[in-house]
Amino acid sequence: MKRLNKIREIMKENFLDAFLINSPYNKFYLANLYSNSGYLLITRNNQYALVDSRYYVQVKENAKEFNVIEISKERTIFDFLNEVIKKESIKKIGIEGDNLTYDNYMKLAENVKVVFLSISLDSLRAIKTSEEIEKIRTAAQIADKAYKHILSFVKEGMTEKQVERELVRYIKECNGDKESFDIIVASGERGALPHGKASEKIIKRGEFVTIDFGVNYNNYCSDMTRTFLLGEAYNKEMIKIYEIVKKAQWEAVKSVKEGITASYLDSIARNIIEKEGYGKNFGHNLGHGVGILVHEYPIIGKGNDIFLEAGMIITIEPGIYIEGLGGVRIEDDVLVTEEGFEVLTNSDRELISVKG
Amino acid sequence: MKRLNKIREIMKENFLDAFLINSPYNKFYLANLYSNSGYLLITRNNQYALVDSRYYVQVKENAKEFNVIEISKERTIFDFLNEVIKKESIKKIGIEGDNLTYDNYMKLAENVKVVFLSISLDSLRAIKTSEEIEKIRTAAQIADKAYKHILSFVKEGMTEKQVERELVRYIKECNGDKESFDIIVASGERGALPHGKASEKIIKRGEFVTIDFGVNYNNYCSDMTRTFLLGEAYNKEMIKIYEIVKKAQWEAVKSVKEGITASYLDSIARNIIEKEGYGKNFGHNLGHGVGILVHEYPIIGKGNDIFLEAGMIITIEPGIYIEGLGGVRIEDDVLVTEEGFEVLTNSDRELISVKG
Repeated sequence: MKRLNKIREIMKENFLDAFLINSPYNKFYLANLYSNSGYLLITRNNQYALVDSRYYVQVKENAKEFNVIEISKERTIFDFLNEVIKKESIKKIGIEGDNLTYDNYMKLAENVKVVFLSISLDSLRAIKTSEEIEKIRTAAQIADKAYKHILSFVKEGMTEKQVERELVRYIKECNGDKESFDIIVASGERGALPHGKASEKIIKRGEFVTIDFGVNYNNYCSDMTRTFLLGEAYNKEMIKIYEIVKKAQWEAVKSVKEGITASYLDSIARNIIEKEGYGKNFGHNLGHGVGILVHEYPIIGKGNDIFLEAGMIITIEPGIYIEGLGGVRIEDDVLVTEEGFEVLTNSDRELISVKG
Repeated sequence: MKRLNKIREIMKENFLDAFLINSPYNKFYLANLYSNSGYLLITRNNQYALVDSRYYVQVKENAKEFNVIEISKERTIFDFLNEVIKKESIKKIGIEGDNLTYDNYMKLAENVKVVFLSISLDSLRAIKTSEEIEKIRTAAQIADKAYKHILSFVKEGMTEKQVERELVRYIKECNGDKESFDIIVASGERGALPHGKASEKIIKRGEFVTIDFGVNYNNYCSDMTRTFLLGEAYNKEMIKIYEIVKKAQWEAVKSVKEGITASYLDSIARNIIEKEGYGKNFGHNLGHGVGILVHEYPIIGKGNDIFLEAGMIITIEPGIYIEGLGGVRIEDDVLVTEEGFEVLTNSDRELISVKG
């Protein structure tokens, strides 16, 4: 019920009589329903789950505090909304405009004559409960274990895809449900692609390899990146940028605490990288929240002046990318606490050279 | 270039000067870019990929026929659109209103002063090329192999989750990239949940088990369902509904050919199930297209009067679900051909009782 109260607070702040929720992650957060299909309608005094026959039994079992309404061609979502609007004197309904499609909005607006207002629910899931933190902590620990395993697994001549597959297999062996997103394995020059998904490229001796992956455990994600070296380093600039990224990352991690702003945290890492002349090679934000989704509110970046609060879990992941040469990124999941921080991913941040 | 021509035809039909594409699957289909971020802009004579620095190198490599434009805070998507609109005299731009969010639409409409028109691109990917068919064929063959494996793997006392994990592991062993969606393993009474994802429920002797899964191979999906029996059947009604579903499914499969409508195909299976008195227990559509997404255009269901065309790949998946008892579903992927059909998934459709 606490989670529903958060929605009702948002309704009050925005003078809404109801909120119509359609994003799968918020439906999961509030009613244990992870599906693109169906809506939740939260009114001042009631909460309804509007689902078709496929989900009816499941939602009745899993979301006891909801009135579960079966939606069909005979009783559409519009029919139901119009009934409730009349019965509960609803004038203004919040919608998730960052998730609801333009087409679905237009259909709503045509069929249901109330005021719809797009209100961001981004921050709804930002502060994690202790149960949520426990799940993410486990997801992070599995990621650490899997990374250690992969360092002993990777051999010269393997493809990036082979490394990816072993990682996915091992995550499940460690009781992780699955990878939390398509794994990035970017070796050699491909390291310059911040989002370089594992390819058929063969990993060669002397190359730096960036692995960015996460574990989904009980519907919660971890997200971690490390760059390691296969064999000996042939390139001094790569060693140099590794040390810069490592320093920038750790200085930012150490600065995490309740009350600082996201943009300030970003600037700590960014200033270090800029001072070394690589500012233009760090083209993305420092990090982001992590939870049910691997990318959640808040963005840790320039211009985002929200304050960090205890219970948020964020990534800190600076990188330097040089076209034609390669790249380095180091990323940890960090829990914001009242006193400061707790790092949930704890794989070694020193440059590791694996024999391979 | 053929694929771009399809977009330009849609532009002509709808009197559009350009189309702005934001769905990840259409960006992948047209420009090999599988990401939520970034846009493609197709104008009468040019095509642009608008991406941030993370994707710039990658798109330049993978989508040679596109002009790749780096979008940043200094040159936003709106800046760029306004430039092109002026340069190419654009008055009307198509948008993917079934994918573009309401919020993003509102920002576009505020910052870019042209007419935007929501046009469905649903049918864009409906007819598969021979290369696409080959990929889906392979994805289907791996699914068949994996299902055979799972029949010998499943034992009394295992949880549904254990079966799911072995299936995922084995798919990768067979060179599949991953499962094409969260696998459904629904045993015993849970079989009444058409979307019952694998749970911690233990599979018991005498239970029917429905497995609905697919393989993602080179970004193309297969989708298949079988229901089998662990040990001996204790329930005559379950045997009865199995035979009804089997008959309904196969009669529909045999009817597939170019030129019939989706709704007609649905009615073939539905009539058989209704005649046996289980119409209300078959609450979903008969099937759907399958391709880059596991659910694609067209919907094979009541009221959808589109004609099947050669080169479409659709699922045929009737089911009967009885709360408190269980359920049965049988699903195949079927290629529509000029002469008729080719079934891509070929696992046995007879009721199999595994020793377990």
